[in-house]
Amino acid sequence: MAGTSERVVDVTVTPVAFRDPPLRNSVGVHEPYALRTVVEITTESGVSGIGETYGGTLHLERLRRTAAELVGMEVWSLNDLIARTTRALGGDTAGGDGMAGMVTGSSTADRVMAPFDVACLDIQGKLVGRPVCDLLGGAVRPSVPYSAYLFYKWAGHPGQEDDDWGAALDPAGLVDQARRMIDAYGFSAIKLKGGVFPPDEEIAAVRALRRAFPDHPLRLDPNAVWSTETSLRVARELDGVLQYLEDPTAGIDGMASVAGRSPTPLATNMCVVSFDDLAPAVARGAVDIVLSDHHFWGGLRRCGQLSAICETFGLGLSMHSNSHLGISLAAMTHLAAATPRLTYACDTHWPWKRPDEDVVDPAPLRFSGGGVTVPTAPGLGVELDREALARLHRQYLDCGLRDRDDTGYMRRFDPSFPTETPRW
Amino acid sequence: MAGTSERVVDVTVTPVAFRDPPLRNSVGVHEPYALRTVVEITTESGVSGIGETYGGTLHLERLRRTAAELVGMEVWSLNDLIARTTRALGGDTAGGDGMAGMVTGSSTADRVMAPFDVACLDIQGKLVGRPVCDLLGGAVRPSVPYSAYLFYKWAGHPGQEDDDWGAALDPAGLVDQARRMIDAYGFSAIKLKGGVFPPDEEIAAVRALRRAFPDHPLRLDPNAVWSTETSLRVARELDGVLQYLEDPTAGIDGMASVAGRSPTPLATNMCVVSFDDLAPAVARGAVDIVLSDHHFWGGLRRCGQLSAICETFGLGLSMHSNSHLGISLAAMTHLAAATPRLTYACDTHWPWKRPDEDVVDPAPLRFSGGGVTVPTAPGLGVELDREALARLHRQYLDCGLRDRDDTGYMRRFDPSFPTETPRW
Repeated sequence: MAGTSERVVDVTVTPVAFRDPPLRNSVGVHEPYALRTVVEITTESGVSGIGETYGGTLHLERLRRTAAELVGMEVWSLNDLIARTTRALGGDTAGGDGMAGMVTGSSTADRVMAPFDVACLDIQGKLVGRPVCDLLGGAVRPSVPYSAYLFYKWAGHPGQEDDDWGAALDPAGLVDQARRMIDAYGFSAIKLKGGVFPPDEEIAAVRALRRAFPDHPLRLDPNAVWSTETSLRVARELDGVLQYLEDPTAGIDGMASVAGRSPTPLATNMCVVSFDDLAPAVARGAVDIVLSDHHFWGGLRRCGQLSAICETFGLGLSMHSNSHLGISLAAMTHLAAATPRLTYACDTHWPWKRPDEDVVDPAPLRFSGGGVTVPTAPGLGVELDREALARLHRQYLDCGLRDRDDTGYMRRFDPSFPTETPRW
Repeated sequence: MAGTSERVVDVTVTPVAFRDPPLRNSVGVHEPYALRTVVEITTESGVSGIGETYGGTLHLERLRRTAAELVGMEVWSLNDLIARTTRALGGDTAGGDGMAGMVTGSSTADRVMAPFDVACLDIQGKLVGRPVCDLLGGAVRPSVPYSAYLFYKWAGHPGQEDDDWGAALDPAGLVDQARRMIDAYGFSAIKLKGGVFPPDEEIAAVRALRRAFPDHPLRLDPNAVWSTETSLRVARELDGVLQYLEDPTAGIDGMASVAGRSPTPLATNMCVVSFDDLAPAVARGAVDIVLSDHHFWGGLRRCGQLSAICETFGLGLSMHSNSHLGISLAAMTHLAAATPRLTYACDTHWPWKRPDEDVVDPAPLRFSGGGVTVPTAPGLGVELDREALARLHRQYLDCGLRDRDDTGYMRRFDPSFPTETPRW
């Protein structure tokens, strides 16, 4: 290994689907399957690394186009990965966010590059016998805390049996959900996905959670469906109750007009989603905390750069999540472990995924006290289960879903479901 | 090696002195010896790495204090290096810049940490069999361009024989100096250290260089001894002649008042010298280009963060130099090679150092066409010459210099040499 080149000889791109509960959000409701794509890079010496990303059609096509461009690349040259991804994409940069319209302004090149960046770092770690966190500056914490990510939800997908979690459509239902999740995982922070019911109902839910969990930091995320006036009213009513309020309203200008008067810190994973957004957000004082996400910020190394920017410009740093599998949980854990600035418990959808559905053996990803112990094996510390990958790929082929469409799915049951914003 | 810890068992800190010509600048003149410190870190498996930094008394004492704190550190944990350096320094953060007062606001922790960061990366590279640039994202250029760094100079140190370069105290002398330097090294850009003569003389020098070298980008650096009015006048007179004007006047406010009206881009390595300076500089629009320097920006990884910040906030990136030895030239070359943003030829004092004085065999650092070919051997690609190190350490002990004092040395020959600024 030492001193020799380590070039990419093969890149596979495999879309998968895994079952997802009917979780509500501002744009609708999660469909019965969540889509992801697994990438695997293999080098000339036979070492392979893995990454995980969104599973929508356009993104998948871009991943395949980029994969072809990566053959021959030196796995140590992450600068070359950026160049090759840019070349593969050409001018094709619109759409393909894979987030049902909730995050649309992220950089296409960063989004496409991210899983390959993770796979290259997985390979680098295996080559040098070090966990990925060591390639990012070393773990500053032995375990990465995650938050209990609560959702309003239906009891089950229409036409199917109720799922194991049951319904949560009011404060009492959310408190029950939180209790069960915290009992199982030990989470010490709570995030509620809001933007589903009128703000006063969500305020009531937050207050119920505060009463039930007096010491857990609480966050509320209505995904920018409130006006600036409503945002400010909620921020003031929940002054001292919320750790931070995520994306109450849309855009840097909207957030800035709230931030200047809000006693509650504002966080975002919607108006600052790419490096291009940082200068205007800083200039306007639009947010207090940025929720990083290596899936759209260009991978693990680029998130390290984001962290440095946040530190330099006085912004807090937390971490955003979409429905994901074990590869991403491993990557998120290594990244968070090596990011001193990341002092908030990270978001994860992990509890919503069935334990029997994954593309890796999740054994190395153990929750304890609300956190995941940082894997110490070389690379990401999780290995592809090829039989499981084939099964979830088959499920992708069979399920018929090709693009995330929370709104379309919602309208099958509520044809008049509105999408105009601000809704409240 | 693979998967095992790689802990530091020994750290040595060795001050050295090497001969330096009487180069003039705004604060005086270079003394007969330049001071540097060489650090060497050795791990439990016997792998060692090297770094180079300033050689002043206070800095040296801090390096020694920090070195003791590094024993037991995992060399993969650069985050831990930051923590240990901070711990070693405690509240001791004033002074010790080692730059004769020309750069005083840099972060002490970053300055102290830097050579150890380089040494750890040297070790990491050796452990994994990769050049340091690969640990920084991979080389984007096979050779790093440097600039011809011109100085007004005396023919020799008073009381000594004239040196080989001879005097350069007017435009013709500088053109001769430039020609000789470019003939020898192939440099394709020229920097003049100014702030020595009244601005009109330095304008004349720049114009003479432009006539003699019509295609070489030109830069002028008066080290902030001009008023804002003088700065603006020179910037306007040299509109279209200078690639950039470095630090014409002092401070972020001063630079901002010039930048807003200057047709010539402004660069700095004086008013933006630490991460703390970036937010105010960006807010004020004080500069167009930041000259990075891993010696005071916290090492190679931190300079990568600086690059990301410059890219994100629309600032150009170049590289500053002080008198240095081969370890630093290797580190600067790896860093610049792995920094896509760094599109300007870097500064270096290399031609001013005698070829027979170094602490490494400089053979891997070959200039060709004005650039240094990026070393491809594992680590930095240069190895400590222990006999030479001992010789230059002996020279340090014998020369009697302990702190850089360009002004004090100047006043031995010109007792009324002024230091009030703005001087012009």
